[in-house]
Amino acid sequence: MQVGERIRFDHNTELNELIDTLAEFSETAEGERDGVTRLLYSEPWKAAQNFLARTMREAGLSVRFDKVGNLIGRLEGSDPSSPVILTGSHIDTVRNGGKLDGAYGIIGGIAALRALKETYGTPVHPLEVVSFCEEEGSRFPIAYWGSGNMTGQFDWRGGQMVRDSEGVSLHAAMETSGFGREDQIDSVRSDLGAFVELHIEQGVILERMAKQIGIVEAIVGQRRYSVTLRGEANHAGTTPMNMRTDALAGAAELIVRLEQLATRAAALVATAGRLQAAPNIPNVIPGVVEFSLDIRHDNERTLSWFCDYLFQEYEDIANRRGLALEVTPWLATTPVPMSRPLTERIEQICGRLSLNHRRMFSGAGHDAQLFAGLCPTAMIFVPSKAGISHSPEEFTAPEQLADGVSVLTALLHELAYEEHER
Amino acid sequence: MQVGERIRFDHNTELNELIDTLAEFSETAEGERDGVTRLLYSEPWKAAQNFLARTMREAGLSVRFDKVGNLIGRLEGSDPSSPVILTGSHIDTVRNGGKLDGAYGIIGGIAALRALKETYGTPVHPLEVVSFCEEEGSRFPIAYWGSGNMTGQFDWRGGQMVRDSEGVSLHAAMETSGFGREDQIDSVRSDLGAFVELHIEQGVILERMAKQIGIVEAIVGQRRYSVTLRGEANHAGTTPMNMRTDALAGAAELIVRLEQLATRAAALVATAGRLQAAPNIPNVIPGVVEFSLDIRHDNERTLSWFCDYLFQEYEDIANRRGLALEVTPWLATTPVPMSRPLTERIEQICGRLSLNHRRMFSGAGHDAQLFAGLCPTAMIFVPSKAGISHSPEEFTAPEQLADGVSVLTALLHELAYEEHER
Repeated sequence: MQVGERIRFDHNTELNELIDTLAEFSETAEGERDGVTRLLYSEPWKAAQNFLARTMREAGLSVRFDKVGNLIGRLEGSDPSSPVILTGSHIDTVRNGGKLDGAYGIIGGIAALRALKETYGTPVHPLEVVSFCEEEGSRFPIAYWGSGNMTGQFDWRGGQMVRDSEGVSLHAAMETSGFGREDQIDSVRSDLGAFVELHIEQGVILERMAKQIGIVEAIVGQRRYSVTLRGEANHAGTTPMNMRTDALAGAAELIVRLEQLATRAAALVATAGRLQAAPNIPNVIPGVVEFSLDIRHDNERTLSWFCDYLFQEYEDIANRRGLALEVTPWLATTPVPMSRPLTERIEQICGRLSLNHRRMFSGAGHDAQLFAGLCPTAMIFVPSKAGISHSPEEFTAPEQLADGVSVLTALLHELAYEEHER
Repeated sequence: MQVGERIRFDHNTELNELIDTLAEFSETAEGERDGVTRLLYSEPWKAAQNFLARTMREAGLSVRFDKVGNLIGRLEGSDPSSPVILTGSHIDTVRNGGKLDGAYGIIGGIAALRALKETYGTPVHPLEVVSFCEEEGSRFPIAYWGSGNMTGQFDWRGGQMVRDSEGVSLHAAMETSGFGREDQIDSVRSDLGAFVELHIEQGVILERMAKQIGIVEAIVGQRRYSVTLRGEANHAGTTPMNMRTDALAGAAELIVRLEQLATRAAALVATAGRLQAAPNIPNVIPGVVEFSLDIRHDNERTLSWFCDYLFQEYEDIANRRGLALEVTPWLATTPVPMSRPLTERIEQICGRLSLNHRRMFSGAGHDAQLFAGLCPTAMIFVPSKAGISHSPEEFTAPEQLADGVSVLTALLHELAYEEHER
């Protein structure tokens, strides 16, 4: 199978035009600097999904929405009951996000399906591209609402207790938006043969290593904690150094130690991203400090071991300083390996297309991680300029975006146009 | 001179009653937990000064306000033109402060003068007690407005550019409050023979060392800085440890280093009290962190040397980490020694009164530091429970408060009832 190479996207393709058009469906219309804000079930979100539905139809796909508002474009296969080859990503964004996170994987998928249909006609397997309604958790404190409903982790009847900052429940917002009706197509799928997600890296690795394509071997597991240190708030001038229990000095030692240990542990990342000190006044010794921990690794045992070891050290440090330590976990996900056969196929495709490539982990979570237990799943990354994402400055060069779509197209061709075992 | 011992205050004196009454002149009337809020030239401030004026008159003192609203009670001397022996403290408070900070020194001074008059009659030197209008800098970004006008550091005609949070200038507030008039008594004094300030320690030293009286040898010099570190805000999951410039990890190292160096330098205190990280989100590496430094010592050379050394280290650490460092000084005061002869007198008085005492530094600033260049100046401290101040929980036991007034009374007796050189 080397026909895939015949389809090669370049920076002149309509890809960038579509990405720019889609970016206009945003809450703020004050120009580039504000980036894209497209929250689940909002007006710009609805308009964006409708725009994509039209784009899918123009690409020759049949279009449907499911119960939670996932949008699916389908290129029927010659064997319509054979496992579906699915690609896509999410349409929602963080507040003031970029125009590529999520959007690129949908538009790339539509471009791939159109090109495959135009070049090769009807595939054996049905080919579908999905625009997941939600992945970011930006409006409601829940993430993966789209892929979670498709893979059975979530039930569309739920979401009554999950509310946005204005008190609107997820379920109510869904209904207002025209979804969540009994007569609509069920989200959950049992007909999938593979899922492939094309996404920007959102990191600096590909750029720094001068690679065009990242092949994801696993999506890291994550642990998030809230760490609280309690000492005594006291006068900064009248309390000698040896009579202090300074919560911020203690937190500083814990953060330095976190960095030391994480730097030693290969491929692990650990971040204290948020810190609040109280009373937070220049001339008062901080009495209470709370900070967040975000720890990620691709191996569950390493991740667990690291956290156990870290918190043992944290306890020792807090005890030595006379500070009360409280560690509250609030998120724990296990690493998700991608399909090895698909990973190898992508590697071969990159070789044939002469694209510099690199196997890597995804340090961020993605819709793909919900499919990995259900069907062979793969992710293709393209570089992110300076690693910047979730920001209006998010950028990938047009030719790099085109390269990613070329790889996706070749993989979908292999998967959908060949007869596969059932 | 051992007559002073005849006057001994105990916990049954009216001292505590007066302190409680004065605490009722406060912006918030929601009870003990909110503490005392008495900002310069506010309605509760005016009412408090008027209450003190009545109290002074009842104590047999002649009473006057000066141009900026300092309230002065005078016990005339047999030699009215001889140098005035002055005691007192400030009537204003921080927001939600305690009832002792400032107030204790005024009420203690009135009690001392009343007792001296009742016991010994007319002194040689005029004896005065002052309720300074302002010391805390709580309403306006200026401190020592009262003692500063009395000692000539400030001019009552100024304060037009200094505004409170609602945009009212200090000068306008003063006029609205009935002060700042040409026909009022000038604040500035050239007739002072000594200034003695009685104050709570606002620290833990006396309590931990089980001492009843602290004798201040010097008020520390202070340096305050704002330290800003700039790195790169990036994705916490997709940015490997060795590709980060984490401003919070950098700040943590600087704060740990601050603590290490300060602990090694005898009698120096250094505090990072306030810290703000940006964007301050759990899954984003902090790109910018700003924190405050408050560094104090009783020796100017040590203080300067410490700061120079610290910032050299800070630069090295920032350079190694690839962070941009900015250090902005915003306050610098030099240490102020108290009068050695007065310090020795207080020590002798404590001995005679069988009070455990200790020479110490004041880590906080006080009105006394403005007088030290003008006349022999002394400060007497009493313990603060758990060192807590600037808080509704500020507390000193009634018998400890009484001890402080006994020492003050004995000292004032020595100073005012003896003939001193002119």
